[in-house]
Amino acid sequence: MISAEILGGLAIRNNARIVLLVLDGLGGLPDEVTGKTELEAARTPHMDELARWGICGMADPVARGITPGSGPGHLALFGYDPLKYQIGRGALAALGVNFQLGPNDVAARINFATVDRRGIVTDRRAGRIPTERNQQLCDKLRKIEIPGVKLFVETVKEHRAVVIFRAEGLTDQLSDSDPQKVGVPPLDVKPLSDEAARSAEIANNFISQSREFLKDEKPANMVLLRGFAKCPEVPSMGEIYGLNPAAIATYPMYKGIARLVGMDLLASGNRIADEFDTLADNFTEYDFFYLHIKRTDSAGEDGNFAEKVRLIEEVDTYMPQLTELNPDVVVITGDHSTPCALKAHSWHPVPVLLFSKWCRPDRVEVFSESQCLAGGLGRFPATEIMALALANALRLRKFGA
Amino acid sequence: MISAEILGGLAIRNNARIVLLVLDGLGGLPDEVTGKTELEAARTPHMDELARWGICGMADPVARGITPGSGPGHLALFGYDPLKYQIGRGALAALGVNFQLGPNDVAARINFATVDRRGIVTDRRAGRIPTERNQQLCDKLRKIEIPGVKLFVETVKEHRAVVIFRAEGLTDQLSDSDPQKVGVPPLDVKPLSDEAARSAEIANNFISQSREFLKDEKPANMVLLRGFAKCPEVPSMGEIYGLNPAAIATYPMYKGIARLVGMDLLASGNRIADEFDTLADNFTEYDFFYLHIKRTDSAGEDGNFAEKVRLIEEVDTYMPQLTELNPDVVVITGDHSTPCALKAHSWHPVPVLLFSKWCRPDRVEVFSESQCLAGGLGRFPATEIMALALANALRLRKFGA
Repeated sequence: MISAEILGGLAIRNNARIVLLVLDGLGGLPDEVTGKTELEAARTPHMDELARWGICGMADPVARGITPGSGPGHLALFGYDPLKYQIGRGALAALGVNFQLGPNDVAARINFATVDRRGIVTDRRAGRIPTERNQQLCDKLRKIEIPGVKLFVETVKEHRAVVIFRAEGLTDQLSDSDPQKVGVPPLDVKPLSDEAARSAEIANNFISQSREFLKDEKPANMVLLRGFAKCPEVPSMGEIYGLNPAAIATYPMYKGIARLVGMDLLASGNRIADEFDTLADNFTEYDFFYLHIKRTDSAGEDGNFAEKVRLIEEVDTYMPQLTELNPDVVVITGDHSTPCALKAHSWHPVPVLLFSKWCRPDRVEVFSESQCLAGGLGRFPATEIMALALANALRLRKFGA
Repeated sequence: MISAEILGGLAIRNNARIVLLVLDGLGGLPDEVTGKTELEAARTPHMDELARWGICGMADPVARGITPGSGPGHLALFGYDPLKYQIGRGALAALGVNFQLGPNDVAARINFATVDRRGIVTDRRAGRIPTERNQQLCDKLRKIEIPGVKLFVETVKEHRAVVIFRAEGLTDQLSDSDPQKVGVPPLDVKPLSDEAARSAEIANNFISQSREFLKDEKPANMVLLRGFAKCPEVPSMGEIYGLNPAAIATYPMYKGIARLVGMDLLASGNRIADEFDTLADNFTEYDFFYLHIKRTDSAGEDGNFAEKVRLIEEVDTYMPQLTELNPDVVVITGDHSTPCALKAHSWHPVPVLLFSKWCRPDRVEVFSESQCLAGGLGRFPATEIMALALANALRLRKFGA
């Protein structure tokens, strides 16, 4: 792919506006009876209209055969090489609770867990304690002090929390304390590189103090840490593309990723209608909008075909409201596929629809996996979507004389 | 892409001949009324015949979304990675006047400009002075002497010229003196790296002497320099491919790029008929021919749809003359798209037609953007065209045992 440096050198500012509409987990697999995917089963007259006038294709978020997590899927959509900018589990958890990671921060996922009297793990999730309980436990852990280290402990959900260690010289080259099974004690955190000795010591100190603070709790009397991660330094979309970008997303993690790449977060209600209203309300203030629809992915993960179809159809009804704003470029796609048949993210490429005055239309008549296969964009890396969007917004100068 | 080294190791010599016909700016966008691009609107029975027997596809000169200049567009066609071999504006200008740049040369584009008595730029193009006037001014500038530096000043056209600084140790890490706007004085050339101090001094010396030599001229009493560039060292097509290549081109810049990659330049008249006659006259002398049609691009830049159609049709009439020569491989494509609708180079991929006895024909019946999309070559980087041409000429050995 074209490097951020080269793209940055080509970017120019103008008044053109780009909307990137992401239906999370959009791509699907055919229903056994009808042979139609979720997107194909959905009645989407407005997206089909855009497909007829626009250009379609199939994008691979990371590479053929690779199932992306939400982090890599979104980074690719925003034009960042997901193999270069890897966001570890701990960092993603921190982004997910809107914690702004700095260069001296190492984050780790916490599971509140149950250990028996001998210290053997008996439940890695402490019976999935309620989130309120989790908050109380986090309050306790906030009393932990480690000299020279600033600590932050944040609730995620149920048994899941995140801890951030802040000190100069920390590294994330650390093994997990989570043994990933019951019947054994938690592991010591081990340094995975020569410079990691102090970081490991700090992590183990945190764990042993946690054990003390939680010893009388039931059932969550222990913490398991995994996915130690620093946050990669990511150049902002403003720097690279000369854009003034805004995000409309309802889930913390997507807000976190959006802020990581330098987007402003727009306050929005949780309904799909609210998100499109937020777009309309702020349309003159920014030149790039990332609008994220979460629930298509959730329906996919639940294996709820009918619900995913319904959600795609619901999104379709807002297309007239979107096009009425006269965006110069509209891109509709997903960050990965989440086929109901698999109840999980998958490696299948994701349909892409790009509409602009300057695209070269193809013969695609319906926004669907099968038609996108023959679309004019071909099969391509999702990391190239941003360059295409910028080009169609006439926001890229020519390369070379 | 396959590196030049690997390709070079596979290349073998035989008697097969390849013709690469480049219609500059070939790709287009649909006319609003007919929905047809320039190529689709053109009647091209002979190219369509070649498409039926051959194999087609869509090539990206640099990458999706990137609009190539003529330099990168052509380098890609000749199989050179345009991101690796970047030709700066100054070097391209020098190539364009057939100046052979050596390793100690730094070239810069000159604009003859007008400054007022206080030295403020009032016209960056000095009213687009006639080329003859430009030649007289260049004669004056040739009197400039800088110790230790050999200087060359060459007219390009109207207000445009080029200066070449030749001395050991020069670098092109220099900022422009052209302020890119009126109402301000020309800028000092500034060194952009530690080693560039002397080069900047030489450039500023040239500019201040130019000011003296031109001070009584009207309206062109100043020079503005931009695009300082050394020419990348490019391995020749002979070295890489084992070809003995020749170029038939009427515009200096294309001749310059062709010579840069080691082609012989064949003398030709300016008409399309002359170029095809030159091909026929020299057909037994070389095994690779680059035949460049410039005016399709000019028509695109003028937004003259009918003229671009007419030119494509005119080129089509010479196809029988071309195939009568029995070339083993014919490739017909462009170096980039220049849609009349945009009046400029664009990022849209370029249709490619390859005809040889050994291609695997696809279902394309007409040489057009829409059919090439479904062609057997797929959507691919233009840098791979040369390997395909060589393969179809049976000029590449197998890779590995």
